[in-house]
Amino acid sequence: MKPGEFELIDRYFRPAGARSAAPRGVALGIGDDAALLELPANLQLVAAVDTLVENRHFLKTADPRSIGHRALAVNLSDFAAMGASPAWATLALTLPDADPDWLTGFAAGLLELAAAHGVELVGGDTTRGPLTVSVQLLGTVPRGTALRRDAARPGDVLAVTGTLGDAGAGLEYLQSAAPIPPAARELVLRHEYPAPRVAFGLAARGLASAAMDLSDGLVGDLPKLAWASGLAAQVQVERLPLSEALLALVPAAHARELALAAGDDYELLVAAPQQRYPDLVAAAAQLGLRLTQIGRLCAGDGVCFTLNGDQFSPALRGYDHFR
Amino acid sequence: MKPGEFELIDRYFRPAGARSAAPRGVALGIGDDAALLELPANLQLVAAVDTLVENRHFLKTADPRSIGHRALAVNLSDFAAMGASPAWATLALTLPDADPDWLTGFAAGLLELAAAHGVELVGGDTTRGPLTVSVQLLGTVPRGTALRRDAARPGDVLAVTGTLGDAGAGLEYLQSAAPIPPAARELVLRHEYPAPRVAFGLAARGLASAAMDLSDGLVGDLPKLAWASGLAAQVQVERLPLSEALLALVPAAHARELALAAGDDYELLVAAPQQRYPDLVAAAAQLGLRLTQIGRLCAGDGVCFTLNGDQFSPALRGYDHFR
Repeated sequence: MKPGEFELIDRYFRPAGARSAAPRGVALGIGDDAALLELPANLQLVAAVDTLVENRHFLKTADPRSIGHRALAVNLSDFAAMGASPAWATLALTLPDADPDWLTGFAAGLLELAAAHGVELVGGDTTRGPLTVSVQLLGTVPRGTALRRDAARPGDVLAVTGTLGDAGAGLEYLQSAAPIPPAARELVLRHEYPAPRVAFGLAARGLASAAMDLSDGLVGDLPKLAWASGLAAQVQVERLPLSEALLALVPAAHARELALAAGDDYELLVAAPQQRYPDLVAAAAQLGLRLTQIGRLCAGDGVCFTLNGDQFSPALRGYDHFR
Repeated sequence: MKPGEFELIDRYFRPAGARSAAPRGVALGIGDDAALLELPANLQLVAAVDTLVENRHFLKTADPRSIGHRALAVNLSDFAAMGASPAWATLALTLPDADPDWLTGFAAGLLELAAAHGVELVGGDTTRGPLTVSVQLLGTVPRGTALRRDAARPGDVLAVTGTLGDAGAGLEYLQSAAPIPPAARELVLRHEYPAPRVAFGLAARGLASAAMDLSDGLVGDLPKLAWASGLAAQVQVERLPLSEALLALVPAAHARELALAAGDDYELLVAAPQQRYPDLVAAAAQLGLRLTQIGRLCAGDGVCFTLNGDQFSPALRGYDHFR
């Protein structure tokens, strides 16, 4: 006899290979009271946790595969922001019911992204209740090399990876009752299947002085980095990198607002000394990734935005759950 | 300027001391994208996660201090079952609103138990939504010494710590509309403030052959241990340890049912070779804890209950979220 909750984890979340061969560093995985993991010497353990809640982080109509992908992606993005290597994940999954189709799609989305990043699911807890997905990600970083928020220096260049606002525009299409035009598919995919910048985070170690991921939008997140480093930030809004897809579909002023305030792009915000910045751009280019200077950090506090030299006040605010 | 969600974590969940002195093994705690932790050499990393959902694991009327206590206790109990030392926790907290009174009580319950077990809260995520509390606990165990579920041997004594059924009876009092009699206070406290058997788990390493914690009731949990070890289990129901408080308030037959099927006692179920069992009893006694043999494991599969020699079928089933 094999009990029910057990079987649910076993059926949906234990990848085929894991049953026979012990994956990297996993002494004991799913199925006991806790997981046992092997950490190589001279590495620091890195731990992050992020939760997705229905109707808050994803729509009731969202594809379960996308929910599974995003539940892990938000944590991988935290690792990217630390310059850390992900290794193991645990899953706390609260579900209204155990719908096999939903679970199959959700597990596929989560496990495919896990496999792409060499992450092993080592444990979890399934409970019944309102749909809430919390993933904890564990991994490593060589001692003292992590990219922190609090280590930016006055004069540092402020830059972002990729393009901003795409996921925000994609969400607007998903929320609209109208059919999604084919040209907007790319923006919708940016929302549904964000690509965490883990490889760039690793490449940025030793080049960037500080980093964080843009999960709550630049307007919401930049003040956290500036505050943690005890610095002021200046952003030239006309420099924000906007995709061709976004500019083709959305008026320029609204595209700027989305790039400033919409979350879910999961691009990285990095600070780097002027003399190291070219190497950082080259490192991004090697990964096929755009890196764009958007401003600078300096002594003081607060964040100031300009548009073509004039002071600029973003109309939208960054995402904050309790404000 | 200091952003809102940040401030919520900072205000309620960062203990006074942690701001200045770096706690044991914490290179970087709350406030960045991830925590950085130092693991001593020759230890395995242990990771567990457990979720509490309103109206499922606690009543809507539950004291927030008790919810905070239990959210960590359920994970400490998993560590007890592994014979592992807890060190760090992360908290994924989904809240309908940021009520200061609720948060103060919840944080006090969680942080007091954390301090009692030397656990440092190193990160978390607060989101808005239906009340759901997920704690991930990290810690260590010397390589190869963890108590697993799958290592019991034929002929092992089957034993439990403490007394069973108290928390189940306490929950019945909490669910009843009638006032709680003073004599039942002890049972209610067993439900609201379970004491995870971490010290006994550590003492049982090298003596017990397998262990798990009784979170879903003996009827629900014992089959998991028996199945994982590939053995059959026999339980003599008349041996189940029942507290004086339980026997004084509840008819004997119902007390037995609670001891068999009610969850939330967070006692440990252990298997030990006959010749080591006296040492295990002595180790428990040193900690002021009762250890009671309730049966035996043998070759085969399935779980069989007897009451004074006759076959016995528990009326209630163990707790399973998806059956």
